[in-house]
Amino acid sequence: MGDRHPGDPELFFEFHVFVCVNRRPDGHIRGSCAARGSEKLRDYMKVRAKELGVKKVRINAAACLDRCELGPCVAVYPEGVWYRVGNPADVDRVLQAHLVEGGRADELRLPA
Amino acid sequence: MGDRHPGDPELFFEFHVFVCVNRRPDGHIRGSCAARGSEKLRDYMKVRAKELGVKKVRINAAACLDRCELGPCVAVYPEGVWYRVGNPADVDRVLQAHLVEGGRADELRLPA
Repeated sequence: MGDRHPGDPELFFEFHVFVCVNRRPDGHIRGSCAARGSEKLRDYMKVRAKELGVKKVRINAAACLDRCELGPCVAVYPEGVWYRVGNPADVDRVLQAHLVEGGRADELRLPA
Repeated sequence: MGDRHPGDPELFFEFHVFVCVNRRPDGHIRGSCAARGSEKLRDYMKVRAKELGVKKVRINAAACLDRCELGPCVAVYPEGVWYRVGNPADVDRVLQAHLVEGGRADELRLPA
C-alpha cells in the first residue's frame, strides 16, 4: 500500500505541500502551528514558490496535521517528507533544497 | 522528483487523506466542496476509518485543493490518487477499496 499503481493517472500536482494553519487557544499544552506563525509562512511559501518558478505545485493550507509540538509543520507529498519551518529562511531552504533541487532540507526534517 | 529517497524516514501516516472543506460564497461560479457537504463527509470518513480499524491513517481537513468543480474532492497520499465523494456511500467505497483493500475505487476517481 502507499505505492502508485500502473493505472494511476499522472500526479495532479508534482508537489503537494500541506502547511498546517491550525490554531488552538492560547496556552494549550500542545501549542499550535498558527500560534507559531504558520499562516504567514504559508502565504510567504506560496509567493516564493511562484517566484522560483516551481511548476505543478500547490502550497495548500491544511487543518491540524497532528504534530503540533513540532510545528510549524509542513508535509510534502507524494514523498511524505515533513519539515519544521519556523521562519521565512526555513521556507526558502525547503523550497530550494526540495522543490527546486529535488533533494532534502535535512536539518529541518521531522523525525519518522 | 516525487520519489522517496533511500534516507527518507518511514511514512508518518500510511494513508494521509485530505478532504477539502473549503467554502465559497453561495452562487460562486466554481462552487465549493463545503457547499456540497464535504464537512460532514469528512467527519463521517474519520469515524468510519476508525471503525474499520485502518491503521496509521489521518483523515485531514484541507483548505481549497483547487479542483472545486469536481468536488467534494479527496486526495489520498502518498499515492496522489483523487476521488469525488458525494455522499456517505462514496466515502465507504473509497475507504473499503483503497484504504482497506489497497486497490482503487475506480468509478469515483478524478481524471489526471
